[in-house]
Amino acid sequence: MADTFNALEAVIRERRSGDPSASYVAKLTARGRAKIAQKLGEEAVETVIAAIEDDKPGIVSEAADLVFHLAVLLADAGLSLDDVRAELARREGVSGIDEKASRHAD
Amino acid sequence: MADTFNALEAVIRERRSGDPSASYVAKLTARGRAKIAQKLGEEAVETVIAAIEDDKPGIVSEAADLVFHLAVLLADAGLSLDDVRAELARREGVSGIDEKASRHAD
Amino acid sequence: MADTFNALEAVIRERRSGDPSASYVAKLTARGRAKIAQKLGEEAVETVIAAIEDDKPGIVSEAADLVFHLAVLLADAGLSLDDVRAELARREGVSGIDEKASRHAD
Amino acid sequence: MADTFNALEAVIRERRSGDPSASYVAKLTARGRAKIAQKLGEEAVETVIAAIEDDKPGIVSEAADLVFHLAVLLADAGLSLDDVRAELARREGVSGIDEKASRHAD
Repeated sequence: MADTFNALEAVIRERRSGDPSASYVAKLTARGRAKIAQKLGEEAVETVIAAIEDDKPGIVSEAADLVFHLAVLLADAGLSLDDVRAELARREGVSGIDEKASRHAD
Repeated sequence: MADTFNALEAVIRERRSGDPSASYVAKLTARGRAKIAQKLGEEAVETVIAAIEDDKPGIVSEAADLVFHLAVLLADAGLSLDDVRAELARREGVSGIDEKASRHAD
Repeated sequence: MADTFNALEAVIRERRSGDPSASYVAKLTARGRAKIAQKLGEEAVETVIAAIEDDKPGIVSEAADLVFHLAVLLADAGLSLDDVRAELARREGVSGIDEKASRHAD
Repeated sequence: MADTFNALEAVIRERRSGDPSASYVAKLTARGRAKIAQKLGEEAVETVIAAIEDDKPGIVSEAADLVFHLAVLLADAGLSLDDVRAELARREGVSGIDEKASRHAD
């Protein structure tokens, strides 16, 4: 069975160039990079709020919106979730995902 | 081959309860939900900035950080990327990922 | 002449308890703290994007939206911009605004 | 007595071109627009979290950080809080702060 994230990306890629009046992906893509990035930021804010409220269904719903808009943004930049997977695997391959990530601790 | 996102989640789950002095995941988890959510928000801001700058390596790197912290947050709430996949598949199953998402258009 | 920020706060305080169908402040306040905070976060994202694009009219417009929603949030918490002024003055009084702020450097 | 926000801006303007090793404002400014915008976004995330937690001292502290970094950003763009005040007054002058703001309701 195909991974849902891959299926999501395939749908997004197909609809990017579609009719903006019939497709949210086409409409958002037509509004340009800044608008896509803005939506990603907004979904992250909503995920943060659901997380602080410990609203589990809310976390799942906002995380789905966040991943959706991340996939739209990646597609708009000619990138994909596979590039993100490769980056995560690269970090793991070098020194372990956790140790690599520790560079981000403050 | 196991999906990298699943491998990432397995590593995170294993390290959550580890030694905070040896593991970033353990340290961040020990600081609590608000700190995890804060980091997610910060990585989203950095993803937005890389997207506006059209810095493709930056987008990939920040997106990897964003997915990483999303996985840490989901684990902290007793959730997983599979819950996010199920939510995305549910939307697709009902009326198509794109149509469902169109409820978010403004 | 009264400071515009103070005038803004006076208007917000007066309209908080007004008719949600006639006032944006009343409507947003009625939706609750999380919605007010969400709007603040969204305006910050838009300010970040305008800043990266070096869109000066956009920066001014988004900064105005940001300050507006910050004032709505402060009022909702029983606080005011004077509390923020006092905090900034306290930092300056102790060791200089700049030195105090340097604790936030990463 | 001078308004604290104006005093803050005067300090920021004076220190922008100072020694980055001695001044947070000089150091942050030297790192460039994207870094300043990133810090603004981060402080907004922290304000959102304090707001959801109803942590009143936290809201005041994070709001002070947010206003501080907004002033640094405005200065970096050759703008000031007076430009923000003028924008807010213009909105009020045309049709009332509240009515104008209502265009942002979703």
